[in-house]
Amino acid sequence: MSEPTGLIAKSGIELLTFGTPNGYKVSILLEELKAAYGKEYTWQSIHIGKNTQKEPWFVAAGANGRIPAIVDHDRDGFAVFEGLAILGYLTRRYDPEHKFSFPVDSNEYDEAETWMAWQHGGLGPMQGQANHFLRFTKEKIPYGIQRYVGETERLYGVLNTRLANREYVVGGKFSIVDINLIGWVNGSTFAGLDLEGQFPNVHNWLERCLARPAVQKGFTVPDGSSFSNAAVKKAIQTDPEKKKQAEETAALINDAKEKYGYKYASP
Amino acid sequence: MSEPTGLIAKSGIELLTFGTPNGYKVSILLEELKAAYGKEYTWQSIHIGKNTQKEPWFVAAGANGRIPAIVDHDRDGFAVFEGLAILGYLTRRYDPEHKFSFPVDSNEYDEAETWMAWQHGGLGPMQGQANHFLRFTKEKIPYGIQRYVGETERLYGVLNTRLANREYVVGGKFSIVDINLIGWVNGSTFAGLDLEGQFPNVHNWLERCLARPAVQKGFTVPDGSSFSNAAVKKAIQTDPEKKKQAEETAALINDAKEKYGYKYASP
Repeated sequence: MSEPTGLIAKSGIELLTFGTPNGYKVSILLEELKAAYGKEYTWQSIHIGKNTQKEPWFVAAGANGRIPAIVDHDRDGFAVFEGLAILGYLTRRYDPEHKFSFPVDSNEYDEAETWMAWQHGGLGPMQGQANHFLRFTKEKIPYGIQRYVGETERLYGVLNTRLANREYVVGGKFSIVDINLIGWVNGSTFAGLDLEGQFPNVHNWLERCLARPAVQKGFTVPDGSSFSNAAVKKAIQTDPEKKKQAEETAALINDAKEKYGYKYASP
Repeated sequence: MSEPTGLIAKSGIELLTFGTPNGYKVSILLEELKAAYGKEYTWQSIHIGKNTQKEPWFVAAGANGRIPAIVDHDRDGFAVFEGLAILGYLTRRYDPEHKFSFPVDSNEYDEAETWMAWQHGGLGPMQGQANHFLRFTKEKIPYGIQRYVGETERLYGVLNTRLANREYVVGGKFSIVDINLIGWVNGSTFAGLDLEGQFPNVHNWLERCLARPAVQKGFTVPDGSSFSNAAVKKAIQTDPEKKKQAEETAALINDAKEKYGYKYASP
């Protein structure tokens, strides 16, 4: 497939995305809005390895040169980037019945903003760094591995506590707060975490979220990820080479933690 | 001074903070609200090196165990944490004339949320990691130094472009979008950046922001920082040992960049 070279839609929301945790949060919400209200959207897959997101036509919508970004063709091409802001924008404009959000003057709106910011400034960036040091560097750097896997675990501990007596993170219903988190939590195996064993409340919450058809659909835009918990677990179960790699990764994390005297604590 | 052991105020906003970029953003807004509306607040200094922010009474307000957090004694002790959410909450509740914010149904509200999320998920966390690898690790790790100083520079480049034809980041006025950034930008020398030389638009914007009396006041709560641009530059000018350290730091960054073939590009 050739890379996109400009916007293609004339109406509705146009999503510029890729199969990453931050991309999925927007396609999941757009699938929910489509199912609930019939809101239409168009998407284009932006191959981040090819730096299409640095092209001037993309940067006009997403000044930071990162996916996801949206363009609202029904509002003069108004563009929004940064996952937190996109979820906020879409629900303020297109979720009038507050099926996935909260009225602006409610306490739940403030709580939602708090937990979305917590994901956006903490769990997302830190899990991203864990992935980087664990999976993507040429040299393995134990200091980086234990720092970021450890901080990611601390943050999952905070979420696990939050979900101890709640079905969803804010306001007793499935909302953009959950959507903001799903992509990252569904990539936690890849980041070296044992979700079911270490953070059972988060595991059960994820199962509840994944049971929603629109969530499943959102995870196929632009395509499914080989980094999802299910894909990583399946690979380990069916491919002896992958199983061996997973054991090596676990040992790498343990050795790195030991070397620097890491001890789990949360918050 | 002994460490706080619980909330102390009965009315108004109580701020739990420390002299860091994320702490200052809240004290600056509270000083602006005080100057503009007479809104009262109380603050307590939470020494993060002593882990007071992990105490149960603190975690009841800030579930993540990090400063800043606020408690609103005029609204049944409602608590908010995460800088972005605190600035949003305080202006939605206590800036009725939109002196530092934008009406919720305006495009500027969405733009403000976008650029605040950009700071909260990008510039803040990445500059924080740059500080860590440059200043706070026992061993110097060139890979981490060039990765995070480099990403911080990329982000400042995005901001520099944004400010090319604007006095302030959003909506033509000083707002929470600027306040959200000031603390970090005012610590950019410490993170190894040459603000005036590399990012002149950002430098000029910072000068405009620092000229505001409430901003200067906010930077004294709970106390001034020895990591501010002015403090770091003054130390270099007056202390030969500090000057030597600064030269060593610059060399460390350059060597790390060279080792990994870093090239500046933005976005």
